[in-house]
Amino acid sequence: MEITSVHNPRVKAWVKLKEKKHRDSTRKFLVAGEHLIQEALKADLLCELLVCKGSEPITEGVPVYEVTKEILRKLTSLTSSENQIGVCEMPQYQQHMWERIIVLDGVQDPGNLGTIIRNAIAFDYQALLLSNDCADIYNEKVIRATQGALFHLPILRCELMKSLVELKKAQVTIYATALRESVPMQSIRPEPKHALIFGNEGTGIKNEILQLCDYRIKIEMAAFESLNVAVASGICMYYFYQSQ
Amino acid sequence: MEITSVHNPRVKAWVKLKEKKHRDSTRKFLVAGEHLIQEALKADLLCELLVCKGSEPITEGVPVYEVTKEILRKLTSLTSSENQIGVCEMPQYQQHMWERIIVLDGVQDPGNLGTIIRNAIAFDYQALLLSNDCADIYNEKVIRATQGALFHLPILRCELMKSLVELKKAQVTIYATALRESVPMQSIRPEPKHALIFGNEGTGIKNEILQLCDYRIKIEMAAFESLNVAVASGICMYYFYQSQ
Repeated sequence: MEITSVHNPRVKAWVKLKEKKHRDSTRKFLVAGEHLIQEALKADLLCELLVCKGSEPITEGVPVYEVTKEILRKLTSLTSSENQIGVCEMPQYQQHMWERIIVLDGVQDPGNLGTIIRNAIAFDYQALLLSNDCADIYNEKVIRATQGALFHLPILRCELMKSLVELKKAQVTIYATALRESVPMQSIRPEPKHALIFGNEGTGIKNEILQLCDYRIKIEMAAFESLNVAVASGICMYYFYQSQ
Repeated sequence: MEITSVHNPRVKAWVKLKEKKHRDSTRKFLVAGEHLIQEALKADLLCELLVCKGSEPITEGVPVYEVTKEILRKLTSLTSSENQIGVCEMPQYQQHMWERIIVLDGVQDPGNLGTIIRNAIAFDYQALLLSNDCADIYNEKVIRATQGALFHLPILRCELMKSLVELKKAQVTIYATALRESVPMQSIRPEPKHALIFGNEGTGIKNEILQLCDYRIKIEMAAFESLNVAVASGICMYYFYQSQ
């Protein structure tokens, strides 16, 4: 099917997916570029494919719409030369008996969130729990920063306090990164069943969450310099991964 | 001195500092916000201060210009609510007998570059060498990402091949991160005098540079997933720092 007008009702519905509230109400989101579309397809989450005239659709297994460059441009905020866009369905996950979990409390930068998702996969974590005030994972910048990793990891937005209480009941040891009242990471022998919490870029982990943790750890450094949260998470995950 | 017109010649000269070529020819750059201006002042690199009417200049030790909000807005590209901007002088560094050095070959993302600068300071590196195709460190986004760390580390743009040959002559061991033909990082006992090289986000380290390295290392991972270069650099620097 060919669509040439930006006023077409389907186009209007797709454009709305650039906003979180419409993504949440329809449980749909957009991905741009062949690599991400392939990943969505493999994860069985691709619903529709929009293809610029002249470009070969990467699949015929979902409805394909031939659209103009102008329409594609309306659907991505970033400077992009992609000529295919996928409309995807959000996966649904339930909390599960995971044994290696990353927890984020208020991480707000989309780039950081995307990078942390990649770290979690690289270092064999099974799930990511996000507090309600984290950035939206279906934000275009997050999706780009994950480079498709998004489709390989269960990610749940949840009431952190409640989820952490459940993890503790299930004998999962909870480690938080904190600058104060914390022990050097090298002094820790990580438990196989664990959750690692990282906090907001400016303010760190909320106090009520810190209270629930079994250990507070800090990354040893030469200078009193705070690290970027995605970097700090990578260093901790690597240490925990190597110490198993 | 008060300036109210965006057509004032001084304003025009400051606006030009948003472009690399003008920064390079004048050896000046801009920083926004009190924290960065304080850091520039401490490093003795602040030349002029532009202050929004009603805001208290953080120093009187350099020429202060009272300007309008409109002028300040013209001088920053990012959404910014800063009401002071500093005009700074680029520091001049010469290659030196450093013993712990970070080398970047073609790192192009300003955010990554800024984050790597912070990592280098946190883990006690003495200098950063950049290939000519790296992002400009005086780019507004890089400066923001460094959060002032920029002023605490000698950073040199250079002919990498030549600089690496000099480092080797000075008995500095050169480690490169590479996915192929590399050994797991944990198998390495880092030499105290060393340089660590990280490459371009998409293509890694150039072949001719790799040839000069003493060791090629890779970060152990569970999944075949490439890490963000700033994260990878943080993990390596932490490992080297801990192994000293």
